[in-house]
Amino acid sequence: VDEAEILSARPQVVLSALPHGESAPRVRGWLDAGAVVIDLGADFRLRDAAQYPRWYGDKHPDAELLTRAVTGFTELHAAAIGKADLIACPGCYSTAAVLALAPAAAAGLVDGRTVVVDAKSGISGAGRALSLSTHFSEVNESVSAYAVDGHRHHPEMDQELAALTPGEPPSVAFVPHLIPMTRGILATCYFEFDGDAADLMDLYREFYAGEPFIVLQDRPPATKEASGSNLCYISTAVQGDTAVITSALDNLLKGAAGQAVECLNLRFGLERTAGLQPPARWP
Amino acid sequence: VDEAEILSARPQVVLSALPHGESAPRVRGWLDAGAVVIDLGADFRLRDAAQYPRWYGDKHPDAELLTRAVTGFTELHAAAIGKADLIACPGCYSTAAVLALAPAAAAGLVDGRTVVVDAKSGISGAGRALSLSTHFSEVNESVSAYAVDGHRHHPEMDQELAALTPGEPPSVAFVPHLIPMTRGILATCYFEFDGDAADLMDLYREFYAGEPFIVLQDRPPATKEASGSNLCYISTAVQGDTAVITSALDNLLKGAAGQAVECLNLRFGLERTAGLQPPARWP
Amino acid sequence: VDEAEILSARPQVVLSALPHGESAPRVRGWLDAGAVVIDLGADFRLRDAAQYPRWYGDKHPDAELLTRAVTGFTELHAAAIGKADLIACPGCYSTAAVLALAPAAAAGLVDGRTVVVDAKSGISGAGRALSLSTHFSEVNESVSAYAVDGHRHHPEMDQELAALTPGEPPSVAFVPHLIPMTRGILATCYFEFDGDAADLMDLYREFYAGEPFIVLQDRPPATKEASGSNLCYISTAVQGDTAVITSALDNLLKGAAGQAVECLNLRFGLERTAGLQPPARWP
Amino acid sequence: VDEAEILSARPQVVLSALPHGESAPRVRGWLDAGAVVIDLGADFRLRDAAQYPRWYGDKHPDAELLTRAVTGFTELHAAAIGKADLIACPGCYSTAAVLALAPAAAAGLVDGRTVVVDAKSGISGAGRALSLSTHFSEVNESVSAYAVDGHRHHPEMDQELAALTPGEPPSVAFVPHLIPMTRGILATCYFEFDGDAADLMDLYREFYAGEPFIVLQDRPPATKEASGSNLCYISTAVQGDTAVITSALDNLLKGAAGQAVECLNLRFGLERTAGLQPPARWP
Repeated sequence: VDEAEILSARPQVVLSALPHGESAPRVRGWLDAGAVVIDLGADFRLRDAAQYPRWYGDKHPDAELLTRAVTGFTELHAAAIGKADLIACPGCYSTAAVLALAPAAAAGLVDGRTVVVDAKSGISGAGRALSLSTHFSEVNESVSAYAVDGHRHHPEMDQELAALTPGEPPSVAFVPHLIPMTRGILATCYFEFDGDAADLMDLYREFYAGEPFIVLQDRPPATKEASGSNLCYISTAVQGDTAVITSALDNLLKGAAGQAVECLNLRFGLERTAGLQPPARWP
Repeated sequence: VDEAEILSARPQVVLSALPHGESAPRVRGWLDAGAVVIDLGADFRLRDAAQYPRWYGDKHPDAELLTRAVTGFTELHAAAIGKADLIACPGCYSTAAVLALAPAAAAGLVDGRTVVVDAKSGISGAGRALSLSTHFSEVNESVSAYAVDGHRHHPEMDQELAALTPGEPPSVAFVPHLIPMTRGILATCYFEFDGDAADLMDLYREFYAGEPFIVLQDRPPATKEASGSNLCYISTAVQGDTAVITSALDNLLKGAAGQAVECLNLRFGLERTAGLQPPARWP
Repeated sequence: VDEAEILSARPQVVLSALPHGESAPRVRGWLDAGAVVIDLGADFRLRDAAQYPRWYGDKHPDAELLTRAVTGFTELHAAAIGKADLIACPGCYSTAAVLALAPAAAAGLVDGRTVVVDAKSGISGAGRALSLSTHFSEVNESVSAYAVDGHRHHPEMDQELAALTPGEPPSVAFVPHLIPMTRGILATCYFEFDGDAADLMDLYREFYAGEPFIVLQDRPPATKEASGSNLCYISTAVQGDTAVITSALDNLLKGAAGQAVECLNLRFGLERTAGLQPPARWP
Repeated sequence: VDEAEILSARPQVVLSALPHGESAPRVRGWLDAGAVVIDLGADFRLRDAAQYPRWYGDKHPDAELLTRAVTGFTELHAAAIGKADLIACPGCYSTAAVLALAPAAAAGLVDGRTVVVDAKSGISGAGRALSLSTHFSEVNESVSAYAVDGHRHHPEMDQELAALTPGEPPSVAFVPHLIPMTRGILATCYFEFDGDAADLMDLYREFYAGEPFIVLQDRPPATKEASGSNLCYISTAVQGDTAVITSALDNLLKGAAGQAVECLNLRFGLERTAGLQPPARWP
């Protein structure tokens, strides 16, 4: 990355897909040069600088900027994204979990409760780096949990759900799993609920009314339905005294680049769905 | 199935792999002829006859026998299995969930609590019947939840955990998922827990001391580790105020035929592991 | 299919995806009503009516129409397709094999020779019908040949290569294989060749100059490169005295619906690539 | 590898699974110490030292030993293996191809002819090393050819088939392919043949009579049938004037460690199948 070359181009926008830790020291320069910055990495996802040493190992180099950043949850922060100079796109797991839980959180249904987020991700979620955990013969024909002691996307979920919750924030238990497929994330979310299933779906329908990338349905979605699109499918159900919300999305689109394009569209007044309507694809 | 032919052979044991509903009307005949019956189907898994109409559609044809049956959880009921005349092998999901939770239940850790069992199964769990949900192109590169409103293995878990629990039985929320792999079940189980991770593992080690088919480990297991064997791998962890127990097994062995062979071994005084020690296989 | 309803709509074009055998008795009615017919099935792929009983079991009901049909190989018959009233889209295997071999055939390189076509197809090539050969657990983690005694796409290859060949037609040995993936066909083609590898590639480049859906490259293509697009990737190589040509395409696009859209575009004077430019997708 | 430690143990046998190039300089020491050496690597597979620079980059360090080595094709060289001091286990592709073609070669059916070997291998054939070609997201849902210009197992096939052929050796065209599965090799072999299909199968049955690890069948085998076993399934068929022989084996057993155990059994007078009879496994 040649900073001088970037700046000399007087960019209106810098869309950074640098690895974690590499955007943070550069963003102020881009902003000073007048660019809007949309960051796909983790460097500006957390508002509380104290979280960075714990989850990313290092002190954040520009904590003041954290307070200026807007997290790119397009369904939750459209107005703020529309005028933000620094937009931090959330992680793929956080996107799946927060979209699954936001309506319930906003309605006060998870105040002070434990919410279980059991997430299943295709191997592309681990990126293109080489490791045994992405080696075909190791992960094919197998499923396993990982990061049971804590995953970096956990504080993103905490932060967003706490902001949505009217009362005491929920306590999230989050366990990600590796699935032998390339693309897709499914988040199955559980919380205590003593209401009616139909009311729960109504609440979700109202919350997401008009949202172009949210598909609500009774049947639990398969990740294949979302594959190749920017859509997030969400189903609600009640089993005994537990609500079960599942969300499915393509981690490489709604969970990453697709959501970044949405942020770009929102920020520059373009049609929200511009560039994000691929042809259907099945199977 | 020619009943006369079976009975004329004066069998010591009938190992029935008939579809659900087809063993029930035959078992009394087999027992009367002096055979021990080991049933791999669901017909004698539930002690309460009232559960059958709800989960299997029909009234049970021989409710008295339900009270004589012993469920084939070899780690929990070895003595009873050793002298039972009718052994009902549990379902694959129940096996994974109950083995993951039994030590905690027996220690009173889940009394009256909600326990989430998020289970992931390979496609062979659906059997060899033809349906779109086992069609390669439909399920490959995809993961989805199903039976969110209730699955037939649910009352088996309830029954077993209630029996193990010293106080009020736990409330189980159980959601199974289809994974694009052939073999294997992973159950990720969650319950509120305010104790120490090391103590939790100690409790599990003590509970399963000497068990030949239980492998306890800190690292969450991959189903591939158990594939082709009768082993059940179990890990324990604590995340915040939630215990996370994962269990992995091969649904076609420990979750079905392998456990039936264990029951056979126990019942007839054979070595517990006889016929159940295949060579290791990786990957 | 309600014929009266179709005809009352006075269609300009009928794009038929009926199963084999169901278009043949209907096409004359559609043509008489003034429609152009584009058939995705096999009913009009073979010019010689005598072939139908052998490969499809029944006598063709309207042999005269066979002589009016144009096979929808867009790279080979663009002009004829442009004015045809009945277009028969070729099979997926035929498309992969014929595109791989056409330049060599036209140059006289396979006259009277044996050409081996070893084809590998994803499971979606078998359609959505339920059978053990599309059951996940049966075909996952496995590869096998089938139809070694003859496959219905074989006479299509013979017909097209014979038409391209200046001298004695080649003899094609064709064996299809099932691959544990959803989409894609790879055809690896072999024929005796004593020339230069660079000349062979030059011949292919010249033959396919300007073709929007042919990608020529030295490196053998992976089917994943073509997945989701209407492209056919072709590589040429020489190993000893054997030419090795590989072609990769998406059986559901270039091998089926995509090629039909190309035919539609050609026939109605639309841009050749209209509707066929999806966004890139990797992995 | 501590040579001194190995030798001080006065081993009867050294079974070396060292990477290519690392056994060659050590074997003479092991032989001098009185051990029988069974090498799973490539260092002693080729009898002609001149081949090593071309295929492995370096001059062979101990060419004299090459003439003493016996290639571990157990079906072809049982007697020689039984008294050899240095046994070189063949490569996985060579095993599949040579077993498929040996009966035809020995019967003079491929003298001077071109034989096409189109081989399909699971990803474990590439070993556990990390590379993009073993990265799940890159190879899943994809099939591709590689090494079209020549693969190291090619000269092994040439060597063995030339030795079997009564007349002019055949010319082999060999192209390996990567299949999105963990285990298994399928070799589909083609050669001109103007005889009868039943006679061809008879010839194979006679050639392999009594062989414990060869399964001959009319139906082309799936690699899944061989998975986890030391068996090699072979089918024969005739399509027009071309013979089509397919062979399926588990590259990690018959194609590697299993065949090495066979050699060990043969060399030390053990039952040929000792340690090589795992339980059946399906699917």
